[in-house]
Amino acid sequence: MAQAPLRFGLIGAGRIGQVHAAGIAADEDAVLVRVADSFVAGAQRVAARYGGIPSGSADEVITAGDIDALLVASPTPTHVDLISAAVDVGIPVLCEKPIDLDLTRVDALRSKVAASGVPVALGFNRRFDPGFASARARVAAGEIGELEQLSIISRDPTPPPAAYVGVSGGIFRDMTIHDFDMARFFLPDIVEVAAFGSTTFDDGAREHGDFDTAAVLLRGASGAIATITNSRHSAFGYDQRLEAFGQRGMLQVANAGTSLVSLFTASAVEAKPPYQEFFLERYAVAYAAELREFIRLVRGEPSTSPTYEDGRAALVLADAAQRAASEHIAVRVGIG
Amino acid sequence: MAQAPLRFGLIGAGRIGQVHAAGIAADEDAVLVRVADSFVAGAQRVAARYGGIPSGSADEVITAGDIDALLVASPTPTHVDLISAAVDVGIPVLCEKPIDLDLTRVDALRSKVAASGVPVALGFNRRFDPGFASARARVAAGEIGELEQLSIISRDPTPPPAAYVGVSGGIFRDMTIHDFDMARFFLPDIVEVAAFGSTTFDDGAREHGDFDTAAVLLRGASGAIATITNSRHSAFGYDQRLEAFGQRGMLQVANAGTSLVSLFTASAVEAKPPYQEFFLERYAVAYAAELREFIRLVRGEPSTSPTYEDGRAALVLADAAQRAASEHIAVRVGIG
Amino acid sequence: MAQAPLRFGLIGAGRIGQVHAAGIAADEDAVLVRVADSFVAGAQRVAARYGGIPSGSADEVITAGDIDALLVASPTPTHVDLISAAVDVGIPVLCEKPIDLDLTRVDALRSKVAASGVPVALGFNRRFDPGFASARARVAAGEIGELEQLSIISRDPTPPPAAYVGVSGGIFRDMTIHDFDMARFFLPDIVEVAAFGSTTFDDGAREHGDFDTAAVLLRGASGAIATITNSRHSAFGYDQRLEAFGQRGMLQVANAGTSLVSLFTASAVEAKPPYQEFFLERYAVAYAAELREFIRLVRGEPSTSPTYEDGRAALVLADAAQRAASEHIAVRVGIG
Amino acid sequence: MAQAPLRFGLIGAGRIGQVHAAGIAADEDAVLVRVADSFVAGAQRVAARYGGIPSGSADEVITAGDIDALLVASPTPTHVDLISAAVDVGIPVLCEKPIDLDLTRVDALRSKVAASGVPVALGFNRRFDPGFASARARVAAGEIGELEQLSIISRDPTPPPAAYVGVSGGIFRDMTIHDFDMARFFLPDIVEVAAFGSTTFDDGAREHGDFDTAAVLLRGASGAIATITNSRHSAFGYDQRLEAFGQRGMLQVANAGTSLVSLFTASAVEAKPPYQEFFLERYAVAYAAELREFIRLVRGEPSTSPTYEDGRAALVLADAAQRAASEHIAVRVGIG
Repeated sequence: MAQAPLRFGLIGAGRIGQVHAAGIAADEDAVLVRVADSFVAGAQRVAARYGGIPSGSADEVITAGDIDALLVASPTPTHVDLISAAVDVGIPVLCEKPIDLDLTRVDALRSKVAASGVPVALGFNRRFDPGFASARARVAAGEIGELEQLSIISRDPTPPPAAYVGVSGGIFRDMTIHDFDMARFFLPDIVEVAAFGSTTFDDGAREHGDFDTAAVLLRGASGAIATITNSRHSAFGYDQRLEAFGQRGMLQVANAGTSLVSLFTASAVEAKPPYQEFFLERYAVAYAAELREFIRLVRGEPSTSPTYEDGRAALVLADAAQRAASEHIAVRVGIG
Repeated sequence: MAQAPLRFGLIGAGRIGQVHAAGIAADEDAVLVRVADSFVAGAQRVAARYGGIPSGSADEVITAGDIDALLVASPTPTHVDLISAAVDVGIPVLCEKPIDLDLTRVDALRSKVAASGVPVALGFNRRFDPGFASARARVAAGEIGELEQLSIISRDPTPPPAAYVGVSGGIFRDMTIHDFDMARFFLPDIVEVAAFGSTTFDDGAREHGDFDTAAVLLRGASGAIATITNSRHSAFGYDQRLEAFGQRGMLQVANAGTSLVSLFTASAVEAKPPYQEFFLERYAVAYAAELREFIRLVRGEPSTSPTYEDGRAALVLADAAQRAASEHIAVRVGIG
Repeated sequence: MAQAPLRFGLIGAGRIGQVHAAGIAADEDAVLVRVADSFVAGAQRVAARYGGIPSGSADEVITAGDIDALLVASPTPTHVDLISAAVDVGIPVLCEKPIDLDLTRVDALRSKVAASGVPVALGFNRRFDPGFASARARVAAGEIGELEQLSIISRDPTPPPAAYVGVSGGIFRDMTIHDFDMARFFLPDIVEVAAFGSTTFDDGAREHGDFDTAAVLLRGASGAIATITNSRHSAFGYDQRLEAFGQRGMLQVANAGTSLVSLFTASAVEAKPPYQEFFLERYAVAYAAELREFIRLVRGEPSTSPTYEDGRAALVLADAAQRAASEHIAVRVGIG
Repeated sequence: MAQAPLRFGLIGAGRIGQVHAAGIAADEDAVLVRVADSFVAGAQRVAARYGGIPSGSADEVITAGDIDALLVASPTPTHVDLISAAVDVGIPVLCEKPIDLDLTRVDALRSKVAASGVPVALGFNRRFDPGFASARARVAAGEIGELEQLSIISRDPTPPPAAYVGVSGGIFRDMTIHDFDMARFFLPDIVEVAAFGSTTFDDGAREHGDFDTAAVLLRGASGAIATITNSRHSAFGYDQRLEAFGQRGMLQVANAGTSLVSLFTASAVEAKPPYQEFFLERYAVAYAAELREFIRLVRGEPSTSPTYEDGRAALVLADAAQRAASEHIAVRVGIG
């Protein structure tokens, strides 16, 4: 009954690549057989710890003929080509978000992916967070009746380096992209976007004409309205909350505390330590679940992995938000 | 040292008029001497309970010469004329919100009010809620550093009657008006408005071309961004929350519970009874504080009562939101 | 249909007497007609504010023939004689707790009160707190099944003056007496008591051989076990909590906050201002409800007012706790 | 710099033995080399999964000469002999609690352990729970000033099988033993014990003359008072809470939720799913930390592992509680 573990090739041995390498090593249905990074020493380090043959060449991994699945965790500009190459040889791909910062390039590959029938999943890890996943399942189960409003709050602890901001594609494509996907997770058919962006504290954003503070309105085809609130910093830790409001009630996903201990003194009560620092801790369980779901997808089992189309849709919304914020208009979108 | 209590005339003996009558009776610096309502029996009932001479004529109250202050709690279309008449005879006014649904009429009276020097205060009661007032004072005291984002959630328990919706001026002028003022309480100088509205559950709103669900983005001159989330219903009670997010932290105002008791069972833990039903309970303390602050204003003491200009500004924002939602644009506003 | 308001005589114009005077004045079924205090100026001040004829003589109040009910808020040593005198002339009494510090004196009056048929209620105000009352009603309604454990935490903000400690009868008779009654509110038939007391911070307690810190175990006839935790100080405000644990769940009564505002910063999240200072604020609503229930008792309507027997039972438990703590034994009690 | 991993022998391949086997396998400073269980197939299963040579003989493990440390997770009656045998050959032991149910046997081994200098640690895993450990460290750091009161609530989800109850030594030695150690973690020098026990719901307890419900008072030499509340069942999940109350405030350790999601409806707000089921989930992190600290102990590094003396002290308190509950007295104890 037991199937052989899926043999993974991993492209990218940076921070997020290491998360995936560890996840593959920990999952008994997966094994790491090849790791590539243009910085070969990085690939070697990951291979030494989690297994597999290190390499400086992504092509080598894809064409070696000994992998069942490809995990793409390399820089964004490489994603489209790597997906394309994997699809060519019929190897399923789990690719980190976003597919690309340029919708033209995403669209160029779109029909090929669809026609190939090769599973391509996007790394929208938050869908696999137990809190968000449970809230969405409970909405689907009707616990709050018809969904009418959705509020997503997403604030990073500290701004990224200025250099990164310059190549990030802007806050909507880089950071809000996760929230656009989360909005679509609850409200798949979004038809209109409005957005405001400001630059109030981050010199890196200022330097590159980007925003550090943003808010977005989304309207679903059903009339449901979603709001997204973003900031590139948060003094009290990683702020990741969601409220789904419906006809019969509300489901709320709270922040993840770091401790069960509260202090009560003459100056304050119920004071807890700040929230978790960042996504590696907050979404550790989600990364593992994302991988498991991708393995199911590859094996042809029922799977909820977000698809290439989901990756594209989030980018469509990001582009719309960018335009809405720049041109002071609400932008109609037709995804599909 | 003790001053004589302020002699109040009250116009309007409906639900909100009764709240003010009770407030005047309970405040040792105020006394109710005249009550008018076009439905005279209503005025008589209020006078019987809280004191004063009942009447069917507002003019009679204003011109009788025995009142020090006027409290206007009659239907919105009467506000402008009543303020005007009171200003003519130099009597300070505390007028329920909104001044009027038509900005033209508000503007027509504007310079007269300003020139008169007669104190005219607007009944934005939420400014006097201990939670909101404390949060705002703590923002002003620098507890969270520079204010960067503001989130206001405001949901009524149940939609108003369809007939009321028809004369309400629409959700932005009728309901969101409170939230526009609350946004200005924290962020006085608002320069841009975007808004989405939907009609998803309320037949009254559908019938009158109004929204039952809405969301608004506001941008302050500083770059700070506010979001407002509204619904005309809320299964779990009156939903009135606010978060002020800044450089160094966040202040959060929670809903008011109805009980300190939680239940823990095999199906759920920390389950509390639903929130308070509606504004009369939720803002009982605020109405009393609003009255006290108006008394200070009349007496020439330092006062934080919102002014005619505040009433006008909230209407400007409501008009802008209505236009933004209809025309799918972001609307630049210049209040002042 | 409306009955004439009950005419109250009040003995005692101190802090707690003033609470009751204000309560009588605010209740439309009650009117204050006489106030006595051995310090006549105090009686005069209360009468001037809340009505009634002031006097220096309690007897005068009781025998004047114009009161329907007596409220006893004078020092503890006077309670037994005042109840006795009121019973003699057939006037119902609401007496502040405790009846007396000496069980012999309480027992001496016991049969007379019982035989008289005159309603005598004890001022165990906490039974009327909405939180505790609701928890008890929900236990009675079976929400948690059979009651198995009860935890009462009761900590005052600061120790009383040393002089007061000297005449207080000790922590168990003075402070825990409320918690003994609360335990009996949930678990009427208590059969065994163990107790520990310590003196760890209060010089007043040390000087008078009293405890400032105590804990009590109580066993009900059903086998249910209650714990009481007391301290004469609490840095974070008045600490008044209760948990009723049963077969199918738990009901928890939380502390009463002073604000709906929480602060989130780099050092702590969800930090709220400290709890309410003391019983006048915490139990304001309870005092009003206690009075209403006593009025029902006097009028022969169904009433839940605690009785003379409840007052005696709490003292029996206090005596048992004192003995248990001193003699290092568990004390069997038979109340009744 | 890196040391060779510690070679562990494990005695006992049952539920808790498997937890330790997994912990050893997961810790890079430990390796499982031998596993013994009188039920050999169990040992084989554990060895197949986590490594090591399986055996039916504990002696074989201890005397093979290839282990650096022994982990004892076999039934309680075997603990004393196994510790003794390990000490004879100089092998450090981490032994599950309790050492034994009979203080005579514990005392018989006491001086030998002390004289041997061989590290013997007791498996009081809760000391290593991040919440309890942090609370204790913060008390030690003076955050709440002098410790005056300690409240420990500990309720299992469901009663053990009746057969287990019969050999458990009774609730105080079997279940409360953890809470006695936790009390000593905060308040090492306990001098007096009172206890109540009841049998209210569990037929197994009734059959074996044991309690299913218990409460304990402990007095520290400083005068600080601790209360322990136990139940053998809890409808809402594993109930593990603690409050340390001091001169300047309180530290509270809350239950561990299973989800960040709350539901708000017309019947209740903030309703969360029940707490974690039982100790394997609740203390998963604690087991890992316990092992790490034992490894430090074996290596001669500073370590906070609880000792043989800690194991004995908890049993002294359990015996005292049993006697206090049976004889209706408070029992003075001298630990040491």
